[in-house]
Amino acid sequence: ANKLLEQTGTTIFTVMSALSLQHGAINLGQGFPDTEGPADIVQAAAGALLDHRNQYPPLTGLPELKSAVAAANQRFYGLPIDPAAGVCVTSGATEAITACLMALLNPGDEAILIEPLYDTYLPVVKLLGATARLVRLEPPDWHLPRAELAAAFSPKTKLLLLNSPMNPTGKVFTADELGFIAGLLTQHDAYAVCDEVYEHLVFPPARHIPLMTLPGMAARSLRIGSAGKTFSLTGWKVGYISGPENLIALAAKAHQNLTFTTAPNLQRAVALGLAKPDDYFTALAGALMERRDILNTGLQRLGFLTLPADGSYFITADISPLRFPGDDVEFCRAITTQAGVAAIPVSAFYAATPPRNYVRFAFCKQPDILHEALARLQRWI
Amino acid sequence: ANKLLEQTGTTIFTVMSALSLQHGAINLGQGFPDTEGPADIVQAAAGALLDHRNQYPPLTGLPELKSAVAAANQRFYGLPIDPAAGVCVTSGATEAITACLMALLNPGDEAILIEPLYDTYLPVVKLLGATARLVRLEPPDWHLPRAELAAAFSPKTKLLLLNSPMNPTGKVFTADELGFIAGLLTQHDAYAVCDEVYEHLVFPPARHIPLMTLPGMAARSLRIGSAGKTFSLTGWKVGYISGPENLIALAAKAHQNLTFTTAPNLQRAVALGLAKPDDYFTALAGALMERRDILNTGLQRLGFLTLPADGSYFITADISPLRFPGDDVEFCRAITTQAGVAAIPVSAFYAATPPRNYVRFAFCKQPDILHEALARLQRWI
Ligand SMILES: CSCCC(=O)C(=O)O
Ligand SMILES: CSCCC(=O)C(=O)O
Repeated sequence: ANKLLEQTGTTIFTVMSALSLQHGAINLGQGFPDTEGPADIVQAAAGALLDHRNQYPPLTGLPELKSAVAAANQRFYGLPIDPAAGVCVTSGATEAITACLMALLNPGDEAILIEPLYDTYLPVVKLLGATARLVRLEPPDWHLPRAELAAAFSPKTKLLLLNSPMNPTGKVFTADELGFIAGLLTQHDAYAVCDEVYEHLVFPPARHIPLMTLPGMAARSLRIGSAGKTFSLTGWKVGYISGPENLIALAAKAHQNLTFTTAPNLQRAVALGLAKPDDYFTALAGALMERRDILNTGLQRLGFLTLPADGSYFITADISPLRFPGDDVEFCRAITTQAGVAAIPVSAFYAATPPRNYVRFAFCKQPDILHEALARLQRWI
Repeated sequence: ANKLLEQTGTTIFTVMSALSLQHGAINLGQGFPDTEGPADIVQAAAGALLDHRNQYPPLTGLPELKSAVAAANQRFYGLPIDPAAGVCVTSGATEAITACLMALLNPGDEAILIEPLYDTYLPVVKLLGATARLVRLEPPDWHLPRAELAAAFSPKTKLLLLNSPMNPTGKVFTADELGFIAGLLTQHDAYAVCDEVYEHLVFPPARHIPLMTLPGMAARSLRIGSAGKTFSLTGWKVGYISGPENLIALAAKAHQNLTFTTAPNLQRAVALGLAKPDDYFTALAGALMERRDILNTGLQRLGFLTLPADGSYFITADISPLRFPGDDVEFCRAITTQAGVAAIPVSAFYAATPPRNYVRFAFCKQPDILHEALARLQRWI
């Protein structure tokens, strides 16, 4: 059996969600909303099922969704993406990430990954026979360590995988940081795979800037979006890759070996979603920001040292002030089983020698649920 | 960019479907039915969308679908599969195949593949750094060449990928052939990945026997099924892997890096489908057998030499008697653009030095469409 997978654990999200379910905990672990996305989109998906088009859609996606993805690139970022050749729809962003890495990496290539990192990045790079070069952001400010990043590039560097807004830190990379990254990519003739699944979950004054919008980056970037996150329907597993025609063609060849295509009724509904007026997207971020503030204030009141979260579903909290006799993993197990509130240990986002005092809480939950979680934590503390 | 993918063409199914659409041809190329699956299942999928469970389902699938898959294994083949630990739901059988190969292969391992072969098998084996050993079935009878198969095993052999019922040949492996294969797998301590997506599309007196049912095979096989094929809803992309707990655990770890999970509403509907009474499955095969007979008789009348098709959506025809001045690829392009009937060149199912005189026709279409296709071919000939 495959040695890498044998060594890999079941994803922490599944482990903690199972533990949470088992103990009737409020699940602030795995990142998914506890309310459904827009009713009209869900209705459209149901209607599309009854419309007799449940056979294979085209490999790279339904034209109507590809057009909607291209239009959203234009509307939100001024990015001119070719709707026919510049988009590939995938069965979720997880597949999109794997497809992009598969499209670009050869065995022996190097991929630069930024820690803390999402838990599929490293195994996939290794499974493809490539080598990861890890650059670590340090809490509490998660600034980009420029010298270390520059030093991570080598003649073997094929790509950098950038997650902004970033999971688990909630960091949104700044124009300045992105400019530095773009300079290195140009200098070393490397690609960018941009995991931007939280692109619409950004809290003012922070603003999401796709790396792809920087000078010289359009030709060397693949940008990944997620309908699950953008429309609060994480189970749908509809993702999309935008980029230049030559790179999308390669990603599509990876996609043809990974899932081939994605349910047409869900694609049609997501196309409608992406055409929603701006205020849908503003309201989404606004509602989420309120929830962030509730959780942030509450956790601070309980004695946690919370870190800034400018985007994503997540807030990271330093547990040191609580003087819990154990590490972040033990803390998360304790609050799940004893307090009835699940969270994710941030050490799970590191390949080795992680910090042991940070815990990630998801705030994409209804305000009264967040208040109840805070009350439970208070009783436990 | 990845060298293997750069060399790989866009899948022949997509190429021919696009050409077919462009020329208003009847598409007997890519294998999908032209009628929808059972209305109650489609309705159930629509209903499930409106039922507020559109967030991430569990990694290995909804318990209700996993139970249904286990029950179907028991009902149809007497296979005792653990519903909790013995099933992994995937986003289609393409993902299932890739997940199984990823779960079992290490770089440097050998995988035995049988030609003609489905077009994702070989690229995926290579992308994983493993080596394919190809064993070729020869038309017109597609018998298993036992000496060649035995000779393909080596100390590096990790697995054999078996597709029965087989695409594109329509071959259903016999008990005798399966026994021979099982003997070799036991002798060489190798695994079987069993692509059985056409398991319920088998025409009496032929009978589908999962390799997994043979003595000693349950512990070393991963068996793949497809809701798309079993319920004539190919666009849904819901697949499932059944097997022993230790191998399913590995496949699930591959799955977590490939798509993570699959839309819950589709999973719930497929669970209902798998619980349908036996006569649904018998009627499905019966209706398809009628269509096979229509196409088979018609093609023979037109001068094709058709090969037996005991299962799947496909019939293979020798075009030599037609004295067409070109190979199978040119023939398929000609009938698509000139006659208005698309088909797939069988040479696309070979890694190298393919036969050039076979064409695959899909018969999973309404009888009057098949008659019209035959009439178009007649006019062209
Ligand atoms: C795909 S399961 C994990 C969901 C998620 O992105 C997270 O919780 O970090
Ligand atoms: C996944 S597209 C191809 C469908 C199919 O299995 C075939 O036509 O052989």
